[in-house]
Amino acid sequence: MEPTVKLINYTKEPERVIAAAARLCYSERSGEDLFENLSDEEVKKLVKNILNLGHYSVLEHVSFTFSISGISRVTTHQLVRHRVGCSYSQRSQRYIKEDNFDYIIPPSIQERPELLEKYNETMENLNNLYEEFAQVVPKEDARYLLPQAIESKIMVTYSLRALLHFIKLRTCRRAQWEIQTLAWKMLKEAKQVAPLLLENVGPACLNGNCPEGKLSCGRPYTKEDIDSLII
Amino acid sequence: MEPTVKLINYTKEPERVIAAAARLCYSERSGEDLFENLSDEEVKKLVKNILNLGHYSVLEHVSFTFSISGISRVTTHQLVRHRVGCSYSQRSQRYIKEDNFDYIIPPSIQERPELLEKYNETMENLNNLYEEFAQVVPKEDARYLLPQAIESKIMVTYSLRALLHFIKLRTCRRAQWEIQTLAWKMLKEAKQVAPLLLENVGPACLNGNCPEGKLSCGRPYTKEDIDSLII
Amino acid sequence: MEPTVKLINYTKEPERVIAAAARLCYSERSGEDLFENLSDEEVKKLVKNILNLGHYSVLEHVSFTFSISGISRVTTHQLVRHRVGCSYSQRSQRYIKEDNFDYIIPPSIQERPELLEKYNETMENLNNLYEEFAQVVPKEDARYLLPQAIESKIMVTYSLRALLHFIKLRTCRRAQWEIQTLAWKMLKEAKQVAPLLLENVGPACLNGNCPEGKLSCGRPYTKEDIDSLII
Amino acid sequence: MEPTVKLINYTKEPERVIAAAARLCYSERSGEDLFENLSDEEVKKLVKNILNLGHYSVLEHVSFTFSISGISRVTTHQLVRHRVGCSYSQRSQRYIKEDNFDYIIPPSIQERPELLEKYNETMENLNNLYEEFAQVVPKEDARYLLPQAIESKIMVTYSLRALLHFIKLRTCRRAQWEIQTLAWKMLKEAKQVAPLLLENVGPACLNGNCPEGKLSCGRPYTKEDIDSLII
Repeated sequence: MEPTVKLINYTKEPERVIAAAARLCYSERSGEDLFENLSDEEVKKLVKNILNLGHYSVLEHVSFTFSISGISRVTTHQLVRHRVGCSYSQRSQRYIKEDNFDYIIPPSIQERPELLEKYNETMENLNNLYEEFAQVVPKEDARYLLPQAIESKIMVTYSLRALLHFIKLRTCRRAQWEIQTLAWKMLKEAKQVAPLLLENVGPACLNGNCPEGKLSCGRPYTKEDIDSLII
Repeated sequence: MEPTVKLINYTKEPERVIAAAARLCYSERSGEDLFENLSDEEVKKLVKNILNLGHYSVLEHVSFTFSISGISRVTTHQLVRHRVGCSYSQRSQRYIKEDNFDYIIPPSIQERPELLEKYNETMENLNNLYEEFAQVVPKEDARYLLPQAIESKIMVTYSLRALLHFIKLRTCRRAQWEIQTLAWKMLKEAKQVAPLLLENVGPACLNGNCPEGKLSCGRPYTKEDIDSLII
Repeated sequence: MEPTVKLINYTKEPERVIAAAARLCYSERSGEDLFENLSDEEVKKLVKNILNLGHYSVLEHVSFTFSISGISRVTTHQLVRHRVGCSYSQRSQRYIKEDNFDYIIPPSIQERPELLEKYNETMENLNNLYEEFAQVVPKEDARYLLPQAIESKIMVTYSLRALLHFIKLRTCRRAQWEIQTLAWKMLKEAKQVAPLLLENVGPACLNGNCPEGKLSCGRPYTKEDIDSLII
Repeated sequence: MEPTVKLINYTKEPERVIAAAARLCYSERSGEDLFENLSDEEVKKLVKNILNLGHYSVLEHVSFTFSISGISRVTTHQLVRHRVGCSYSQRSQRYIKEDNFDYIIPPSIQERPELLEKYNETMENLNNLYEEFAQVVPKEDARYLLPQAIESKIMVTYSLRALLHFIKLRTCRRAQWEIQTLAWKMLKEAKQVAPLLLENVGPACLNGNCPEGKLSCGRPYTKEDIDSLII
């Protein structure tokens, strides 16, 4: 089971909003004029300036809402640790019965038939046990038996500023594979509707700054990598 | 000079987004299905439930961007004290020259001709002085002379959750008149595009809970007041 | 296994800090004077005023750090959904091997011997399986097998404002039993060092305002309940 | 009038708290043990690791409270734009009468006698006018006449993470002189009580990364500069 990431909503005309906000800070003209009377060329130039200068507060006027499914509770627990500029609505295990649950299989297990068989069998046993327990005790208690591999669904709204921060950290090869996949998919989805804003976005190493020090993987991404990963 | 508030952007289909997020938490169906396969009737019911239950985190998936002008720096200094779920881009006095500045006149001064004359005269003097100083020292220093009445422009993006909080606090009669006016105008603008989400929204007293204790104004708002103020 | 909550740090003289901040807003005297020259009587009066007026931003100058163990990953996943004014450091399942893991047993299972036996047996099996997998695949992948009941440890720093919000929501009888226990323990710990600031703190119903509507449990807490629960 | 910055409170044993949080993430031992059973040597090593790795969430367990006076409303308006991990209580112009107000004089004006005289004269006139108006209209309205140079007082609590971010941005030579001075003073105060945590802290250029691009001042700070500025 692979993560499914669907961009279900985003700020209309995101590049124009950011350009208008940028110009408001530095120009005599008022915000509403700017929004309506900005040429595409001006928008492009203003956006590039903002990104180059790192004037990131302006990016907060734009946000993206993703509907995510096919990810484990291992990964949603990591995901919701991102707090600033991040909003979540997650499938509840207190209110929804998790019978016949789906689950995530790590690639390292997938590729080892002897482990995979045991893994799948365990999931089936836990499913049966959960169903048995859930007939006697509340769902919210029966779930203590459920494995961390269990699939969850979550809706996520990130400001562009939060999204850039998330992608920078979580597309890093040192992040766990599942949240890495998620981060790349979110980048891909957002890039389709706001290519200018997400140009050159990726892990920190892409711009030559690996922050991992001695723990660095030693294999920095290149722009070509990004292009092939995303498209 | 009155505040001008223009809603320049907002989350598309805001009520549907919130309904989809609400249902994701409590339903077997996944987020993307919910977004597309929700009837208007279902949207309405889900939104009402969320608002009644106070499940406010769901409201964070929706945001509103206002372009505001015609307000004093007195009021922008109050405004930017709202931090959570709030983003700002403000006209800079370091980069924009404030010659021939506009300014805000408090009603209490407006209605007293003898004060008003002195007020306007002072503003003119300060304007002349600013222009003189700005020829010699940096704009960012000349502005120390400028009065707090000076007009500012600001672009504001609030999540719906932050907007409700702001409106609850700042439409209160104990808030200063300028930010009160601003809050009512923001409510009016948002209500035109998301009437369901902003129904019954207003100061705390509207729902019978004045939190001001001994400092209460003693004149709680009624629903009729709200209707007449907004439309 | 019960949650262990230990208050390992907190703002020195928390009531005095809040009183000083409160007076700074409303008095001619400057902050440093206020901090040093406030009588205990003045501190008491200022704190009561702030709490009565709901001027909660002042409470952010004070924070509490708890070291928590003996709670499940079910509950830490709920806990870290509190974002504003909340900081966390959690035991990592990527870096720490979870062999011979402890786990939490819900009371509804504890009191049913036939379920309890199966529950304990399952935990033991999962532990053996985890150890087997962790010899072949990375710990971060083997953990997909681990049950949500597994014990975690977490260090939490909450501003007083965030703490009040957390306690109000999570001491409610409709919260799950594990996070309820946690919230009561945090309240008890904080109250021992800042009794004035945490007086009358508890679930919303304590002050007569159950926000749960039709879902209300119908058994509002009284002050006597609080006293017996905490001390 | 120079800014006065007084550190009136901070997390007890800040380095030990951070070391304990760091170890909790990566060690079998629980938080309370770690806090009590960490040698000074271990604390030092753990803190260095955290700072080198940029694992900044751990720094949020520590905070610093400053009482600041002698700064203009120009600068407090900039200051309160920092939102995340930042709490403020500011002297109110609605409740405190600003007669005989103090004011800040920019160095560029201070050093020009002909401007300075006009500046001081204007401040005196505005003071007289304010007093006259404040006898007739509410203080909150009379203050529209007051200059942005007027002195304010503010109490600020920053988490260590927020403080590092603030210092990095605001000690930059491109920040305005008043907030620059403030940032250096805050750094100095904090460094006296937590030298290990604030070692090598300063503007971005100190570590060779000026983010200002074409707008760079071209005069990066050195460690010697920092030492001489702070001590």
